[in-house]
Amino acid sequence: MNIKANNPELTSWIEINEGSDFPIQNIPFGIISTDKKTKRVATRIGNSVIDLQCLAELGYFDGIETDNIFNQDSLNSFIEKGKAYTRIIRDRISEIFTKGNDELRKKENALLEVITPIDRVQTHLPAKIGDYTDFYSSIEHATNVGTMFRDPNNALLPNWKYIPVGYHGRSSSIINSGVAIHRPKGQQKPNDGAPTFGPCKRLDFELETAFITYPGKELGDHITPDEADNFIFGMVLFNDWSARDIQKWEYVPLGPFLAKNFASSISSWVVTMDALEPYRVEGPKQEPEVFPYLKFNGNKNIDINLEVLIQPEGSVESVVSKSNYKYMYWNMEQQLAHHTINGCNIKAGDMYGSGTISGHTPDSYGSMLELAWNATKPLKLDDGSERTFINDGDTVIMRGYAEKNGIRVGFGEVSTKVLPAK
Amino acid sequence: MNIKANNPELTSWIEINEGSDFPIQNIPFGIISTDKKTKRVATRIGNSVIDLQCLAELGYFDGIETDNIFNQDSLNSFIEKGKAYTRIIRDRISEIFTKGNDELRKKENALLEVITPIDRVQTHLPAKIGDYTDFYSSIEHATNVGTMFRDPNNALLPNWKYIPVGYHGRSSSIINSGVAIHRPKGQQKPNDGAPTFGPCKRLDFELETAFITYPGKELGDHITPDEADNFIFGMVLFNDWSARDIQKWEYVPLGPFLAKNFASSISSWVVTMDALEPYRVEGPKQEPEVFPYLKFNGNKNIDINLEVLIQPEGSVESVVSKSNYKYMYWNMEQQLAHHTINGCNIKAGDMYGSGTISGHTPDSYGSMLELAWNATKPLKLDDGSERTFINDGDTVIMRGYAEKNGIRVGFGEVSTKVLPAK
Repeated sequence: MNIKANNPELTSWIEINEGSDFPIQNIPFGIISTDKKTKRVATRIGNSVIDLQCLAELGYFDGIETDNIFNQDSLNSFIEKGKAYTRIIRDRISEIFTKGNDELRKKENALLEVITPIDRVQTHLPAKIGDYTDFYSSIEHATNVGTMFRDPNNALLPNWKYIPVGYHGRSSSIINSGVAIHRPKGQQKPNDGAPTFGPCKRLDFELETAFITYPGKELGDHITPDEADNFIFGMVLFNDWSARDIQKWEYVPLGPFLAKNFASSISSWVVTMDALEPYRVEGPKQEPEVFPYLKFNGNKNIDINLEVLIQPEGSVESVVSKSNYKYMYWNMEQQLAHHTINGCNIKAGDMYGSGTISGHTPDSYGSMLELAWNATKPLKLDDGSERTFINDGDTVIMRGYAEKNGIRVGFGEVSTKVLPAK
Repeated sequence: MNIKANNPELTSWIEINEGSDFPIQNIPFGIISTDKKTKRVATRIGNSVIDLQCLAELGYFDGIETDNIFNQDSLNSFIEKGKAYTRIIRDRISEIFTKGNDELRKKENALLEVITPIDRVQTHLPAKIGDYTDFYSSIEHATNVGTMFRDPNNALLPNWKYIPVGYHGRSSSIINSGVAIHRPKGQQKPNDGAPTFGPCKRLDFELETAFITYPGKELGDHITPDEADNFIFGMVLFNDWSARDIQKWEYVPLGPFLAKNFASSISSWVVTMDALEPYRVEGPKQEPEVFPYLKFNGNKNIDINLEVLIQPEGSVESVVSKSNYKYMYWNMEQQLAHHTINGCNIKAGDMYGSGTISGHTPDSYGSMLELAWNATKPLKLDDGSERTFINDGDTVIMRGYAEKNGIRVGFGEVSTKVLPAK
């Protein structure tokens, strides 16, 4: 596959800080507004936000149909157009901002309209998410949970290596990075005694990524793993907030519900699968052999470095976990193939979470539940305080990027402050 | 509460068949199209479909803002306006079509535009459903399932009488009555042996109703049971298709997924809570006492007669179950209060399933799983054939209505044919 905008030789005439997640090889998509501009589709190079609606109005996409695509409050109309279209737009943006191309660079007035510094824009939830599904595809995470709560010798449930286990989540409470949440209230049940009601005492994050889909096939049809890449637009960082004590009491037999749907936070910029293609790596060997509908060709994992930080109110950030998306046992293509094998249809703007991404070592676990091992090993933060779960006033920050041959394609961050229960 | 359109004295100048679900006291809302008309909002009196966009254009809603409300392919814009608005519209429709009011009746040309016989319109899915939640609120159903699969002496799980147990479902595969489905494929696991893959062998219906919400509160706020009626627009009949063998292998620990999301069928006309208000009845006594956030005042159950029929290909309909919504242990107001107690937000057009509605007696169970008691007691149909689950070619039909003092307010039906696996 030759994706023009991925050319590692390219540099931009926009200034980009060392170590930025947003070189010209990234070109993610998001929704922004400013004091003067209503919500619209934008991309970002370095710390410069580029207004695509404005570029279209100025004629920079001439020859490409862009009516009612960029003057929108979500990416859905853009994603609805499919992979060939979003690739053409990304390639064209790359061209406009590549060093040596002066078609925009020398137009001072146009530049002032098109480019705004990141600290002067407001980002918004990038997509109107119709359906949201969360998977459970990290073998390390599933093993840790099984070891803690069931049997260390039979940590994985019998179906785990046959099925990319998943469940449906709530779309309405998916929020953009930067939006604070309130600690949820709900029923909990102590090991001995009657159920109680009150604020969650075991508020946790889950380090995940999520992918957002293009339009799919009709109800009744399915998508094969080899077709799946044509249906995946891009990825975001995803904090799947979890109330462990509410979950424990409610989740049998129909799965997590109020323990999850009070809030789910995602990063603002959708990094396209095209931009991530150079970072594909081989995944773990799958044994036993999977059913034919889950078989795939080529490298489907992606080497994405992930980290989680906690910043207590008025204090410094502490890194509490370093993980990597490449550890995933089930890949996105298999997840989508499984999701549709029964004929379930997917739509543009749907979101699919990876499940908590834990690595092999205790410092790479993707949740407080695992990091502090069910509250038995408190975690020390850099300011000397300790955590078993998340406190009121804490901000949880997740960052992620892929890097190879000096080119770093990243997500920025998803950052969420926890306020006390209402 | 005095809802004008509910006046039992009213009759319509539109002819209505004896036993119709749609007297002038109903006035449900749906989406229709015809050979000449694109999708739009409509209501129905008897077998006459009334085009609300056309009524608006002809000035029959003068004084009420109706721009971009009725010329839509879903009810969402209408529902978005809230309860006071939908009540005004329903009252006004009632007025126009009440016997004695000739403002439309004598205008022949207008009548031809406004009214179309039901057999000459196409109905469509009434709402763009953002999020869909399914509950599990029939104590008879939960007891039957627990008796079959766990322990007859401890059939209910410990959380069941504390929590209106629910889980998230898939919105994209919710379909209108009349849309045929294909038998889903998926992994199953025999009791002894390795998992297998193929068409579902235990395809089942679940007799449910569902409610559709108005806009809710902000993320972080909750709705009390006493406030809940202000947030519930109306109800539909709901067949929550279930693949029992797929469910059995996949559902631990995160709940049903592919066993459900291949299709969920609803009836075409949303009957408003206003129209159902006269049929409120007391529900079962709840013991132990519920937490304060689940306490309610007044009668919150509704006396809705429900039945399920199976029509084999080329054969006659057989009634296989007669149940009633009034049996529900948890009511809709409690379901909504529970759903939002953690701050989860709801939106206009969201849908919430009741869970399978089973009665006390074996002929009132709401699923084949219960009616044929886990395939141990095959059900005899009127054509002499037997069923333990649903066969290819079968059409499953659910009907429902409330009736009191000679006024019958009904839903019509949700009817779905099962085609072979693709």
